[in-house]
Amino acid sequence: MAPRAGRIRIAVDAMGSDHGPEPIVRGAIEALRDPERDFDLLLVGDEQRLWEILAELAPETLPLYVVHAREEVAMDEKAPRALRTKRGSSIAVSAGLVGAGRAQALVSAGNTGAVVATSLIQLGRMAGIQRPAIATTFPTSRGQCVLLDVGANADCKPLQLYQFGHMGRVFAQLLLGIENPRVGLLNIGEEPNKGSQLAQGAYQLLDQSRATLNFVGNVEGRDILAGRADVLVCDGFTGNVILKLAGSVATVGGRMVAQEIRRSPLLGLGALLMKPALSGLKRRFDYEEYGGALLLGTRGISIIGHGRSSPRAIANAIRVAVRAVRRDLEGEIARVLQVPEARPRVVAL
Amino acid sequence: MAPRAGRIRIAVDAMGSDHGPEPIVRGAIEALRDPERDFDLLLVGDEQRLWEILAELAPETLPLYVVHAREEVAMDEKAPRALRTKRGSSIAVSAGLVGAGRAQALVSAGNTGAVVATSLIQLGRMAGIQRPAIATTFPTSRGQCVLLDVGANADCKPLQLYQFGHMGRVFAQLLLGIENPRVGLLNIGEEPNKGSQLAQGAYQLLDQSRATLNFVGNVEGRDILAGRADVLVCDGFTGNVILKLAGSVATVGGRMVAQEIRRSPLLGLGALLMKPALSGLKRRFDYEEYGGALLLGTRGISIIGHGRSSPRAIANAIRVAVRAVRRDLEGEIARVLQVPEARPRVVAL
Repeated sequence: MAPRAGRIRIAVDAMGSDHGPEPIVRGAIEALRDPERDFDLLLVGDEQRLWEILAELAPETLPLYVVHAREEVAMDEKAPRALRTKRGSSIAVSAGLVGAGRAQALVSAGNTGAVVATSLIQLGRMAGIQRPAIATTFPTSRGQCVLLDVGANADCKPLQLYQFGHMGRVFAQLLLGIENPRVGLLNIGEEPNKGSQLAQGAYQLLDQSRATLNFVGNVEGRDILAGRADVLVCDGFTGNVILKLAGSVATVGGRMVAQEIRRSPLLGLGALLMKPALSGLKRRFDYEEYGGALLLGTRGISIIGHGRSSPRAIANAIRVAVRAVRRDLEGEIARVLQVPEARPRVVAL
Repeated sequence: MAPRAGRIRIAVDAMGSDHGPEPIVRGAIEALRDPERDFDLLLVGDEQRLWEILAELAPETLPLYVVHAREEVAMDEKAPRALRTKRGSSIAVSAGLVGAGRAQALVSAGNTGAVVATSLIQLGRMAGIQRPAIATTFPTSRGQCVLLDVGANADCKPLQLYQFGHMGRVFAQLLLGIENPRVGLLNIGEEPNKGSQLAQGAYQLLDQSRATLNFVGNVEGRDILAGRADVLVCDGFTGNVILKLAGSVATVGGRMVAQEIRRSPLLGLGALLMKPALSGLKRRFDYEEYGGALLLGTRGISIIGHGRSSPRAIANAIRVAVRAVRRDLEGEIARVLQVPEARPRVVAL
């Protein structure tokens, strides 16, 4: 991979998150105060509001530019409607900056559907990519796993899952630093001929690609958390369900532990002593803490933070964006999916 | 519903489980020693082996008959092959007893795929049922939830999901005693037009059926464990993945807690005091403890226990089988799906 030369610019959508622009601005400042920082930020949103917050928070000079956007997309707004009626939204302006080459990536903690739809339209798909996918990392007992798609495509075809495998592999290499990521296909059995028609077709294509992809075969539901793969591929319906289920486990599990605890004071004391371990566990299980998902397969990079992102989560998302640009995630995906060996011989189904 | 008159007979497949016939025979005896017992058992398997175990375990007379089967299906055997080559297996003989009317239900802790495939062939589908489905109960923070399909059908059509909703509702009413079960559709958004084509089509059909079905709409991954529905409907691919993921949570979660605990002796003391609560939690999350899934939509009832079923789990599975027969689960499903209001007006997709 060719490391990117020159100054990196990230567009940060400051509006539309659950707690307003302040945590976003704080996160941007936190990222910029890093002494080794080598990027500029374009903060997109209501100019007046942003300057007010900046005046309070950042007395010093930082490489931070404010770009005005006259409206914002609400969290509960439908994406197609927002696209149609709010062409001047902070999401649209941020994506426009990337589309026009004035920034290389955008970070938003706003409405996920609107960020994805706007990115698809304003940035466009990379050549040869059938469907961009949302990838996120997922804690396992052995580290982290890249899961995709987690919601951009409710219905998928085998070739799309195949491409997800390659895109996820590049994600794991460049952003998680895993040298030769093990790529698995989520399925309901171990043998190649198991599962839905989609899974069977995707297995074939991934299997043919072993020369360039460390395909480890089918991974069942019970093996997801055990970390049998570094990258796990599935359709966006299944991915979204398991991501949200896993994200809820810590909360609901905690409530269930509380129910058990009511039975005995000794349990209560134990719980008090255990609290740090359970919070640590909760953090590991709660995907919201990771605060970022990447849209893979578009021209330009979009990072979608959770609507309740803390300043720390935003700063992390900005760092991920910078790393993705510097290590040329997009170019690497293009290269990987365009070498002949990586092209499937049979386009099944 | 018309309660069933006359003596109930359950065929118990004693072979093919992970720990051999002994836990199965013990479970059968435990069920029969219930003073209010009003059923007979047909114990199916290697006659000689079964009599040896019985001679040791049950000196008294119990309404238990041994039916010889000359072979057994191994846990890792492929179902289609087993069907073809082992026509004298304990699974085939058990299903044959139900098919011939000599028993009303079968209980097996053997190879799930073989039990399902054999039941489908020997018992056949109920009239009007497109696809039988495997239903299992699932612990939530508010009680139990019936989840189906968990693996019989990796690819589904909307009408099948619609029928699963009605079958699951009858399961929750007759076996869990929930008067008016809330039926939800697993999906990746709350609005009716969200999700895959399958989910959108199923939503339409279930929505039209509100006169006879308490359809509560879409349920997202994050709401599964919170108990937003008493019955949750999905395709067998997604259902299998989430069931196995949830089943693994306690184990992997425990390993992660252990990792946290290594950091401090205070945490270790806390963990010791908390142990009973965590085991309780583990039991609630671990679907294997429930030891039974029901095949719904065939003529005659099949209950599939986990391969590692304990005697208690087998006794429970037998009790569930007896209840399903006595409360006429099969007849009720037929009635529910044959009344005109329960028939969808549009068969979409």
